[in-house]
Amino acid sequence: MSKLPKTIQDLIDEFAKLPGIGPKSAARLVFYLLAKPNRTTEELSQTVSDLKKNLKTCKVCFNYSESDPCDICSDERRRRDKICVVEEPLDVIALEKAGFDGLYHVIGGIISPINGIGPEHLRIGQLIDRIKEADSAQIEIILAMNPSIEGEATAAYICQRLENCDVKITQLARGLPVGGDLEYADEITLSKSLEGRKGF
Amino acid sequence: MSKLPKTIQDLIDEFAKLPGIGPKSAARLVFYLLAKPNRTTEELSQTVSDLKKNLKTCKVCFNYSESDPCDICSDERRRRDKICVVEEPLDVIALEKAGFDGLYHVIGGIISPINGIGPEHLRIGQLIDRIKEADSAQIEIILAMNPSIEGEATAAYICQRLENCDVKITQLARGLPVGGDLEYADEITLSKSLEGRKGF
Repeated sequence: MSKLPKTIQDLIDEFAKLPGIGPKSAARLVFYLLAKPNRTTEELSQTVSDLKKNLKTCKVCFNYSESDPCDICSDERRRRDKICVVEEPLDVIALEKAGFDGLYHVIGGIISPINGIGPEHLRIGQLIDRIKEADSAQIEIILAMNPSIEGEATAAYICQRLENCDVKITQLARGLPVGGDLEYADEITLSKSLEGRKGF
Repeated sequence: MSKLPKTIQDLIDEFAKLPGIGPKSAARLVFYLLAKPNRTTEELSQTVSDLKKNLKTCKVCFNYSESDPCDICSDERRRRDKICVVEEPLDVIALEKAGFDGLYHVIGGIISPINGIGPEHLRIGQLIDRIKEADSAQIEIILAMNPSIEGEATAAYICQRLENCDVKITQLARGLPVGGDLEYADEITLSKSLEGRKGF
């Protein structure tokens, strides 16, 4: 089998490192770029290279931002008595789309002994400091970890650490996804949706 | 909804332009890169920018190459009496993996009136010139267009154009994909596989 030109193979290898992109999709992306004018690759290269320029981490919520504190933390119209605790910045995008109007706290991961991530790697101390410094009478902490075993364990751990803080702790509801099919729902989701049933 | 930092949104937009990557996967890729050390983005940017450096188009087969003629065309061990005609360079990779040992001719697309691509946009004239200049006694032209309606039409057109050339024209077999399931095969594939049945 003949070898591909080095620059093509190199970019296939780079793309294939990205999550969700296998060698075949990577090759498809590279040949797509090859068929485009030079400007396309130049723009992509420049945009990748600019990604982290002027990018800060907000010292309040630890989300990526161009300013510190970030646009969300400094927005006076947002409710300051609700802090949604999420694993990572991507989760903030999802919750923003869902219309959440409070503040966020990105803890930066999830407790995962297999991957060597303990509670000390997460920004839980900073969350406690933030709660102590807040001037709201009653703060609601919404735990929005992923509905996985590790997510639940992390939520339980945070809940325990917040024991001495005067906050209301809630968690995102578990239940049937909208548009889903009851018949295809897994048994744990279905049992959670039974447990959490509401008056009609 | 709060806006994402510009550099993040820009790269999401760039990634989302690539084939098979929607806005959600694009965001996932960008946040993956954000969580990686600066070196990762620098390398990716550099590799994208280098993609077309030193890259030529082989003037014999029109595949991408670092040399002209390309490694395949200049490889004396390859059979020179079989030329496989493909739509695009990606198809060459697939056929190389399948162990094809002849030469290629990349016609550069497919006849598609909807997309404004006529036969004059394809490298069919160059194929005819190549056949005329070849010193092999009998050349086999293997038409390896995609098994689509447009692919079949393009193959039929090329076949007609080669009428006056003294070549043997063949086409890749249509039939059941290996590892596939008879029960799930579509009716056209199944009828083609019946038509093309072989002695056992």
